[in-house]
Amino acid sequence: MQTTTSSGLRLYDYSASANCYKVRLLLAQLGRPYERVPVDIFAGKTLGDEYAAINPAREVPVLETEDGHFLPDSGAILVYLADSTPFMPADALGRADIVRWLVYEQTAVIPTMGGLRFRLQTDRLSLDDDGAIVRRQGAAAALGLLDDHLAAREFFAGGHYSVADIALYAYIHVAGEASIDLQPYANVSAWLERVRLQPGHMNDLEPYPPNARKGAGRSIYD
Amino acid sequence: MQTTTSSGLRLYDYSASANCYKVRLLLAQLGRPYERVPVDIFAGKTLGDEYAAINPAREVPVLETEDGHFLPDSGAILVYLADSTPFMPADALGRADIVRWLVYEQTAVIPTMGGLRFRLQTDRLSLDDDGAIVRRQGAAAALGLLDDHLAAREFFAGGHYSVADIALYAYIHVAGEASIDLQPYANVSAWLERVRLQPGHMNDLEPYPPNARKGAGRSIYD
Repeated sequence: MQTTTSSGLRLYDYSASANCYKVRLLLAQLGRPYERVPVDIFAGKTLGDEYAAINPAREVPVLETEDGHFLPDSGAILVYLADSTPFMPADALGRADIVRWLVYEQTAVIPTMGGLRFRLQTDRLSLDDDGAIVRRQGAAAALGLLDDHLAAREFFAGGHYSVADIALYAYIHVAGEASIDLQPYANVSAWLERVRLQPGHMNDLEPYPPNARKGAGRSIYD
Repeated sequence: MQTTTSSGLRLYDYSASANCYKVRLLLAQLGRPYERVPVDIFAGKTLGDEYAAINPAREVPVLETEDGHFLPDSGAILVYLADSTPFMPADALGRADIVRWLVYEQTAVIPTMGGLRFRLQTDRLSLDDDGAIVRRQGAAAALGLLDDHLAAREFFAGGHYSVADIALYAYIHVAGEASIDLQPYANVSAWLERVRLQPGHMNDLEPYPPNARKGAGRSIYD
């Protein structure tokens, strides 16, 4: 996967992060080559000064643009790469609606489903811990809202597949890994299938590796 | 404040919410008239079916556009209103940078400073509760990052005042109400002053009213 190309795009990436998978998926669907720079989060690679210069929040993904600008945040990267493409609505209201869903994903999906997948897969929580229960409740509230929104819509914003769908797909499609059953959410389930059927869809999201387990490495998540 | 105008913009608004103040500030600086619709959150006004049709997340602000579309989320509303104005960079990278900071504000500033201001002002937390301590720690981490970013910059994105500054200003300028001292953050303090000096700056943010106190009303925050 690691190829240096003339495009000069470089993605600071972690294979088990669905935030990173969002960007890999969009880049694949855009057919844009890029250099993938794996960041071994749990080997402490985001803890030093070198990484702070790339992203002071010490998170992945970060996109290094062709002119050497470091752009953190999966949503911001999606907005940048999708500019003037069919993955971003052309009108002001459509673009604002994209931001609405990007923020919703980061504030209502990531802290619930995303956080729970990470903590269950890396032995930071067990299924019946309070921290797991409260995240499952939050996930159920978010999934209910999303399911209602999709009752009369095929995609989240602008009437067609967009980066809003890519952002929401990332952690929702692995809700099972967060002990969340999607069966009650028929509209969400049908939408996941529509996303999978988009041209150029691919999935290279991986499980967390052994060094991500609690106590096995060093990271900002200790 | 409540005026029906020919523009047809309508803001579902709460005077003590700094998320709402962001939108009021941008509308003032754009010189755009709008109808202000006060939503008495703690009188249960966001709990019914009527408000769910305006925003299924039951939050303020929501902007009703001239063609009757309901747009929730303060960041999305700022992006919509700032489109093609000097408050939004014209290039793709600049617009993406705005999204980076809008998301950062919602994920690192709101849950820390914003949440703490609300809970202290409404008797949901005391200064030395664990929930206050952890939010102050999170606020310190965010303020440190923001202060570093401003070390070599006058504004957050695009080299000039933008909606990124408006979004971050909203809760940071009332950090004192969240028991947070901004004195150690000299760059942030200087930036707050630069924001205050922008043409058309105004401040109509109010304290939480008595019915917002814990146990005094009914809301999604019970």
